[in-house]
Amino acid sequence: MQPPAAGEFGLIESLRALIELRQTPPAVPGSPHSLLVGIGDDCAVWRCGDTTQLATTDTMVEGVHFQRETTSWRDLGWKALAVNLSDIAAMGGLPDYALVTLGLPPGTNSEGLLELYQGLQDCALEFRVELAGGDVVAAGQLFITVALMGRAGNDSPFPNNVLLRSAAAPGDAIAVTGAVGASAAGLRLLQQDPMASGPTALLDAHRRPQPRLALGRLALSAGVRCGMDVSDGLAGDLQKVCTASGLSAEVHLGDLPVAAIVREQFPEGWAQLGLAGGEDYELLLVAPAEVLAAVAERSGIPLTVIGAMAAGSPGRVTVRDARGDPLELERMGWDHLDGGL
Amino acid sequence: MQPPAAGEFGLIESLRALIELRQTPPAVPGSPHSLLVGIGDDCAVWRCGDTTQLATTDTMVEGVHFQRETTSWRDLGWKALAVNLSDIAAMGGLPDYALVTLGLPPGTNSEGLLELYQGLQDCALEFRVELAGGDVVAAGQLFITVALMGRAGNDSPFPNNVLLRSAAAPGDAIAVTGAVGASAAGLRLLQQDPMASGPTALLDAHRRPQPRLALGRLALSAGVRCGMDVSDGLAGDLQKVCTASGLSAEVHLGDLPVAAIVREQFPEGWAQLGLAGGEDYELLLVAPAEVLAAVAERSGIPLTVIGAMAAGSPGRVTVRDARGDPLELERMGWDHLDGGL
Repeated sequence: MQPPAAGEFGLIESLRALIELRQTPPAVPGSPHSLLVGIGDDCAVWRCGDTTQLATTDTMVEGVHFQRETTSWRDLGWKALAVNLSDIAAMGGLPDYALVTLGLPPGTNSEGLLELYQGLQDCALEFRVELAGGDVVAAGQLFITVALMGRAGNDSPFPNNVLLRSAAAPGDAIAVTGAVGASAAGLRLLQQDPMASGPTALLDAHRRPQPRLALGRLALSAGVRCGMDVSDGLAGDLQKVCTASGLSAEVHLGDLPVAAIVREQFPEGWAQLGLAGGEDYELLLVAPAEVLAAVAERSGIPLTVIGAMAAGSPGRVTVRDARGDPLELERMGWDHLDGGL
Repeated sequence: MQPPAAGEFGLIESLRALIELRQTPPAVPGSPHSLLVGIGDDCAVWRCGDTTQLATTDTMVEGVHFQRETTSWRDLGWKALAVNLSDIAAMGGLPDYALVTLGLPPGTNSEGLLELYQGLQDCALEFRVELAGGDVVAAGQLFITVALMGRAGNDSPFPNNVLLRSAAAPGDAIAVTGAVGASAAGLRLLQQDPMASGPTALLDAHRRPQPRLALGRLALSAGVRCGMDVSDGLAGDLQKVCTASGLSAEVHLGDLPVAAIVREQFPEGWAQLGLAGGEDYELLLVAPAEVLAAVAERSGIPLTVIGAMAAGSPGRVTVRDARGDPLELERMGWDHLDGGL
């Protein structure tokens, strides 16, 4: 629910540098396996025989990523799997098997746990994933880690069978699916009143995010090559596309698909919710405008163009207001946005 | 380091029952994927094109699975990957790619973390695994979760291309690789004195377990069909083989490969360390005696026959002393041994 601290990004970068320095060769000489995408995209990607495999993992820690007061056991189960499915969607892939690790504090009630598994199963059935195993460990605080394995959603050879953060080109239009800011708005309402019963659309956006699996595959088949999911907030996530592609981006605040109900409920804060609220689990798609138009035409989900990619200033995201002036993103709590990762 | 509490087994059983009840169909109609082994063995197993895929996950939580006082950062990294490799070894498989999740309390020192990654890389290089991604999250206590993907080590069709807990037959001999009890003995020495410098063999067994990957593949190619790794303690793990195979087992305490140094250091406690110490990461192999003899002849690692499987009393493990009398395992802290899982 909170955007990750700048320190988390810095740490990941340090570790990535260390790992890239010591990157190992494929597991076994003559192995049919080889890593195509490692740390730094939504999934790891490798070849296995004639398929392209995907794997991702995401963790939810009590008190960090969720509060028991605002998240039911069943919603927690749904969300723990859904956020991983969103990573597969971000590659345009198909999900297959999940391993679930539960860290349980002493005295965790077993009815709650069964509800959590019910929520996992709700999501697994909805998106046709099998829960294939996992681990249960004692821990000081509740956490749930899902590792999700899947595969590329089309048969083209790599890189054309997955969406990559690094595949944006100068002049590409930037689009986002659905709407942004609703999940963060729902969370704020729940924090004000854990028993809040409306507006349902906002509460549901927070409680039961819908991974954009079908749309990710559709985008890929329509010719989109660059995408990622919006989990940490639109502006920060777009910055990752910019960094990976060695480009900059301009976004027009007025074009942001922030629902009317969010603007009504948060007349002062809707822009921040939309740009940096996080947990939207929508897709950012970056491609020539006509390709995105073709996706929009074939999809039942709104797809809104919000800006464009440009050469130069790699990693820079500029958000312009109605007058064309750049917003001061630092004042919105995103002081790492201009400094690069 | 501690054998899991009986409650953990009970919880896993409840969750497994729930999941089996609602087992989902393969991810997509006509998918080339299908789950062959789910919850209840060392790895999940499924088909992917013409290969058999394996995946496993294990977590180490500070204060539960390790103490910082007795485990260096670098050894923690090694061990977090090694215990997962042991699950792949237990299937007779080959490891490929790992995802690493770190839960970090505020103020975790980054030098320690880099050492942890160094330990992960030591192990990854030694056993030819690639670290392909992961997640870093804030948490109240340090934990590390590894999800490891691999594949079957031979080209036979399933079930003959993996070792299974469920594949034991009445009359099969039970053998264990290397020696048991050394890791638990090493831990006891470290608990007495975190700066303990000897006996090195025991400390190393605890700090840097060596997954039996080559031996697992050798066993499979020699015709062994049943195996698992010894992570929670020999007697308890053998019971899992008994339950999965619907058989009982008899073990002779006098045949247990407990090193002379363990017997010297713990003249009263060596039997418990050998039977229930845990964290040995050796392999239990169950097969006709002549098949095990062929493995022993071709392997550079000791393989010791310790007992035999029998029909009836599914899930019962009987350990007999030199006079042939059954030990009272309940008095050794393993009161769930006789009661089934």
